[in-house]
Amino acid sequence: AQSAARPDTTMAITRGAARLLTDMGFALVPELTLPNGRRADLAGLSRKGRIVIVEVKSCREDFAADAKWPSYLEFCDQFYFATGTNFPASVLPAGEGRIIADAYGGAIVTDAAERSLSGARRKALTLRFARQAAFRLTP
Amino acid sequence: AQSAARPDTTMAITRGAARLLTDMGFALVPELTLPNGRRADLAGLSRKGRIVIVEVKSCREDFAADAKWPSYLEFCDQFYFATGTNFPASVLPAGEGRIIADAYGGAIVTDAAERSLSGARRKALTLRFARQAAFRLTP
Repeated sequence: AQSAARPDTTMAITRGAARLLTDMGFALVPELTLPNGRRADLAGLSRKGRIVIVEVKSCREDFAADAKWPSYLEFCDQFYFATGTNFPASVLPAGEGRIIADAYGGAIVTDAAERSLSGARRKALTLRFARQAAFRLTP
Repeated sequence: AQSAARPDTTMAITRGAARLLTDMGFALVPELTLPNGRRADLAGLSRKGRIVIVEVKSCREDFAADAKWPSYLEFCDQFYFATGTNFPASVLPAGEGRIIADAYGGAIVTDAAERSLSGARRKALTLRFARQAAFRLTP
């Protein structure tokens, strides 16, 4: 049942986290491909050009299977894990942000550390975000 | 017949110009709202971050009715008018780029002058392009 439920759980958490970020003023691209080839579940771009990445974890096993989450950190100003209410908080690494979400919305329960993107990297990531969003508009 | 045909003509030219720009490697946002409130018919963003604006003119009257086209120039690296084959070339201002297009494709018949966006303006325009594209993905 767990494995069958996981995709639905992931979808619900993703939707709720997206609503939260949208309410916060971020423009969003789901599944943004990063320069290292990994795909961020949600990438947000604020009015001021700040970049946030959200990685959705449906359950403890989903987190345990992902050894590469730290490779997102260098591509954003803030990084959040998004989980459901039942996710065991102690499993997540200390110091990273956390969003709790369901299908209807979400809340930041732990603020993310502030990282500082270099100007060159921010420029490259903004361009990447822009082009991936536009290519999906006109396939 | 002219006025009834105009929207179809505009749509066909826009589609052909979009195909041309896509083939050239641009990611496109139609109807990009610029900082001055005007909307560019097509805005393109290249892999290197260059910005092109295309203004579609269906007929001589369509061009004559638009006194504000020079207000696009400061927001792009290159500016093109896109018209159909029957459009009288002499009507267009010398020195601006021209694309001739139909519904199936287009070609650059006059290269656009190179303009140089400041770093700050390019950054702001790229951010604007990115957010408008992303907001249309997830309405």
